[in-house]
Amino acid sequence: MALGEFELIGKFFSGGRAGRNDVVLGVGDDAALVRVPEGQELVVAADSIVSGVHFPADLPAAAIGYRALAVNLSDMAAMGAAPAWFTLALTLPSAEEQWLAEFSGGLLELAAQHRCALIGGDTTSGPLNIGVQILGLAPTGAAIRRTGARPGDLVCLSGAVGDAAAGLKVLLGTARTAAGPDRAYLIDRFMRPTPRVAVGLLLRGAATAAIDVSDGLFADLGKLAAASRVGARLELERLPLSPALIRSEGQEGARACGLQGGDDYELCFTVPADRYEDLRQTLQPRGHAIYPIGVIEATPGVRCHLAGTPVDLELTGYDHFAR
Amino acid sequence: MALGEFELIGKFFSGGRAGRNDVVLGVGDDAALVRVPEGQELVVAADSIVSGVHFPADLPAAAIGYRALAVNLSDMAAMGAAPAWFTLALTLPSAEEQWLAEFSGGLLELAAQHRCALIGGDTTSGPLNIGVQILGLAPTGAAIRRTGARPGDLVCLSGAVGDAAAGLKVLLGTARTAAGPDRAYLIDRFMRPTPRVAVGLLLRGAATAAIDVSDGLFADLGKLAAASRVGARLELERLPLSPALIRSEGQEGARACGLQGGDDYELCFTVPADRYEDLRQTLQPRGHAIYPIGVIEATPGVRCHLAGTPVDLELTGYDHFAR
Repeated sequence: MALGEFELIGKFFSGGRAGRNDVVLGVGDDAALVRVPEGQELVVAADSIVSGVHFPADLPAAAIGYRALAVNLSDMAAMGAAPAWFTLALTLPSAEEQWLAEFSGGLLELAAQHRCALIGGDTTSGPLNIGVQILGLAPTGAAIRRTGARPGDLVCLSGAVGDAAAGLKVLLGTARTAAGPDRAYLIDRFMRPTPRVAVGLLLRGAATAAIDVSDGLFADLGKLAAASRVGARLELERLPLSPALIRSEGQEGARACGLQGGDDYELCFTVPADRYEDLRQTLQPRGHAIYPIGVIEATPGVRCHLAGTPVDLELTGYDHFAR
Repeated sequence: MALGEFELIGKFFSGGRAGRNDVVLGVGDDAALVRVPEGQELVVAADSIVSGVHFPADLPAAAIGYRALAVNLSDMAAMGAAPAWFTLALTLPSAEEQWLAEFSGGLLELAAQHRCALIGGDTTSGPLNIGVQILGLAPTGAAIRRTGARPGDLVCLSGAVGDAAAGLKVLLGTARTAAGPDRAYLIDRFMRPTPRVAVGLLLRGAATAAIDVSDGLFADLGKLAAASRVGARLELERLPLSPALIRSEGQEGARACGLQGGDDYELCFTVPADRYEDLRQTLQPRGHAIYPIGVIEATPGVRCHLAGTPVDLELTGYDHFAR
């Protein structure tokens, strides 16, 4: 059954206030009104996901809804910001109740987990495109940028990389050998990446720079290094790769997924060497991983080493308009 | 010539800071950072425009860029908010330099006029879809909602309605007789609607409710009335219709365009009868129009009258998912 635009908004997207009392006016007027507390900066990001580009068209609707918000929460995480509110610009070929119920379920479940309120947006007919704009808060001056990495800082990751890229290959039918529980694990890592919001908040005051890995570790670390006007050396044997990934793709394939796959949405961040141990002791007891994988160097560019030997890799990140 | 994603952002969208000093960090990191002044509420809206749905696919790129921001500025106007910052989620089939130069030109020209800074966003490959999320400011409690209209309030418009709908018909080749300067005038009203931001700011403290006319006057006044739990009576002979529109569509056709066409993005607002004259004297000397077109009544629904006689019209607003 198809629904009209205005029914649709009320029926599926009115339950997203996430218990916040700083939403003065939510969904339903020309705009929403929210209160930004004194002493906080507003942190603003917008990321869209497009059917057939960021996910297969037949991905379950709940996973699409989850993912649309997760990639934006990940931007907040990379800034050390606390997510607060978001808007949804939903372009849909048709308004199918079942699809919308699942989509909004996946979206609002994740929103509730992060106390991030849906405060507005619009729905439009057209090829499936989900745009989220997210607003977060960070104490003035506390947000983590890409620009603060210094030579000698350790390069760290918040979790294993490559799983989601392999999961997408499974979904697309191009994976090598993934089977059974490995297959399910890899698909789940693609469908439900964990935005590292809690890690991002703990990085405030400790990390000198951070970025979320959305276009691939090699490319995104390159962007962080370029923004900081430094370079980086990666020790490939230190890349955190899951056993499921290695079993499915082999050691080399797993490494390639880890360097080039961005869909895990882990954080890549830098920390002064003498602050690393403190940070590790802050993160690990709270159940958060930290993997040192390299070091910042003065020379621009990202260099890969394997067991101490330079490795020449032709790697690029995902570019939507690559020639 | 096609450009890569990252070049593209730098080349066409880095000049949009609009001279604001409250942008702590603009385009280029995982998120932007802005400062919200004390005593202000943040006003948040998001509207997308989709090729083939909101505009013909061959509309000049400058007009697409202009329009994508204009519809969002119009939401700020309807709230009585001062636009401050926006993000752009741009989904494009390919990255053509000429198109992008024109698109960003149209977008950033309007942004500069309203001192609204482009602070972030993303670019993605896919069917043309332009999502803008806009952030504005209003003193705490001053934003104008849809909910404050009371019986006896006058219903007013900020300008002529119907021109843009007729302009779109000209562009689509379905207009009746529009020719010469009328044709150019109507097309321009579609391509470059004037967001009534300055009017919205002057409505603060005077208007009891406001909405921007995006889905058609009849439908949008209906939404305002429903949100305020009142009804409205429209005097059709008072509808502001341009001579070009009447010449092109005839008196009845012009009235239909005015009641059902939303693309002009005029404001529809309500003002207590005893405040009307003050408001008129605030607006008109500053070059802003105000047209009283009806009155709020206690009985729900929107009723049309022509020369005092009820007129039964079967009118609906634009619904993207109408059966």
